Amino acid sequence: MSLETVSVTKSFDGHLTKYKFKSTALGGVYAKFNLFIPANAAAGKVPVLVFLAGLECSEDTGAQKGAFIGPAAKEGIALLFPDTSPRGAGVEGEDDDWQFGTGAGFYLNATNPKWAKHYNMLTHVTVELPQVIEAAGLPVDFTRQSITGHSMGGHGSLTLYLSSLLGGSKQYRSASAFAPICNPSKCPWGETAFKGYLAGGIAEGQDLYDATELVKKLPKTPVHILIDYVGCFVIGAVLPVDHFVQGTGDKHYKNGQLLPDNFLKAARDQGYDEVQVRVRDHEGYDHGYYFISTFGADHVHFHANFLKA
Amino acid sequence: MSLETVSVTKSFDGHLTKYKFKSTALGGVYAKFNLFIPANAAAGKVPVLVFLAGLECSEDTGAQKGAFIGPAAKEGIALLFPDTSPRGAGVEGEDDDWQFGTGAGFYLNATNPKWAKHYNMLTHVTVELPQVIEAAGLPVDFTRQSITGHSMGGHGSLTLYLSSLLGGSKQYRSASAFAPICNPSKCPWGETAFKGYLAGGIAEGQDLYDATELVKKLPKTPVHILIDYVGCFVIGAVLPVDHFVQGTGDKHYKNGQLLPDNFLKAARDQGYDEVQVRVRDHEGYDHGYYFISTFGADHVHFHANFLKA
Repeated sequence: MSLETVSVTKSFDGHLTKYKFKSTALGGVYAKFNLFIPANAAAGKVPVLVFLAGLECSEDTGAQKGAFIGPAAKEGIALLFPDTSPRGAGVEGEDDDWQFGTGAGFYLNATNPKWAKHYNMLTHVTVELPQVIEAAGLPVDFTRQSITGHSMGGHGSLTLYLSSLLGGSKQYRSASAFAPICNPSKCPWGETAFKGYLAGGIAEGQDLYDATELVKKLPKTPVHILIDYVGCFVIGAVLPVDHFVQGTGDKHYKNGQLLPDNFLKAARDQGYDEVQVRVRDHEGYDHGYYFISTFGADHVHFHANFLKA
Repeated sequence: MSLETVSVTKSFDGHLTKYKFKSTALGGVYAKFNLFIPANAAAGKVPVLVFLAGLECSEDTGAQKGAFIGPAAKEGIALLFPDTSPRGAGVEGEDDDWQFGTGAGFYLNATNPKWAKHYNMLTHVTVELPQVIEAAGLPVDFTRQSITGHSMGGHGSLTLYLSSLLGGSKQYRSASAFAPICNPSKCPWGETAFKGYLAGGIAEGQDLYDATELVKKLPKTPVHILIDYVGCFVIGAVLPVDHFVQGTGDKHYKNGQLLPDNFLKAARDQGYDEVQVRVRDHEGYDHGYYFISTFGADHVHFHANFLKA
């Protein structure tokens, strides 16, 4: 499992390095990830924020388009960008649908025998990556770790965080998400994933990998969650001149893939107020990285409160 | 030449719109560009910074990866991202070489008959885009315009700026560049472009489109130029642990494609000091957008000094 360096790129006075290694969790295929280490790591280990990307994305998307590196460099925090699935696992049909298989690992551990050898992004992100990075002697302190993500990766962020609280490991100090899939057992993307990857289908997914269900089980444990999403879908003029008639907004919210309202209601019912679970609705943005980059610095600062406490 | 809206995306409280139109300057093919208009444009026209991208890039690259939008929104400045060449012009051989033809228009007007109908990015950027944007009633004030760019686009930025000073139009208030091609008549990329596009070959290019030659002709006109580049090429440890042995730096600088030293010498010989022509060498970065995004905010602030004066 030793790391091989693919590239090293200086950015904001730190270094973004792309690594690859043969991943045990992913059944022996090569996994790639990007790791940003800020300049202050020369003086000692630094805390780390994990960014989980969404469907069709890779370890590069958040690094290139998320505008996280500048704020992280300023805060002195490392950034870990995993991939979104195994690549080249050779499972029949894995490349047939952009919503399932390659690029769509859903940050779970598959139990359906067809997928169970390779599709274990949960173990890859929570166990394997910290292990290989620590084993390489890199200056990252995984006892100070938080997590964020976008869309499917926002689902990953919330579920990995909540699971770690439920399991008692408290692996992550805080979680945030951009337009996350919040209730996957009740949306088409999540249903497809759970039916495909899990022997127990949607019921297994609802039990283990559904943020809205997980938050209901929390025994009043303090939480630190920030969610930004785009709840409205505007048809009409969005620019200061009258000939811009254009739809804008998050079509995946509109299509019922994200369901942040369900998560928010469950969190409030569980007694979490807006200090512990802060959910912000941003009018007029869409589902993409221009939305993420607008609020990326907010998320880094949010996590810095806990990572540097 | 009326504009068609391809997409509108909210970012940093403003809007990034992709347009297309049938371009006269480019011989009738459709041209695309991105235009970011900050929220303050609702109160009146705003100044504009043009970003010219490099070889193989498009109107999307700087918008997605340059980290210019946040700083521009804060300053209240529009951003114009043109494409790097005509697309689909149908000129024989235009897609054969990534350094020439499609994606490599070099911001000049071709005089070689084979290319002269379509490859006129100079007119496209300096005349046509301002015209179509003003004709559309968009809230951009082209009397307050500055220009920046990367690599081939840095060559474009410097030559368009210097030409406008030499021609007396003063179209741009200031110019900046990231790792620009500074002396194209003396580097392989520039030689290929000039020999291909120009009936007069390298001599014509040296006369009209070479920043190092143009600056020598300036009659002590005040200039405002900022150039960031990466002059060193380090082989060795670049991270705080000892197993990172990796080359880093700007290989195109090393390969003699950029030649910023030639430009700097010519500028200093002409009497321009470091206030008027500021050139910064950044150790350890490379030629890509992680370098650009690190210093993107600096460039926006530099131009804001003049755009908002």
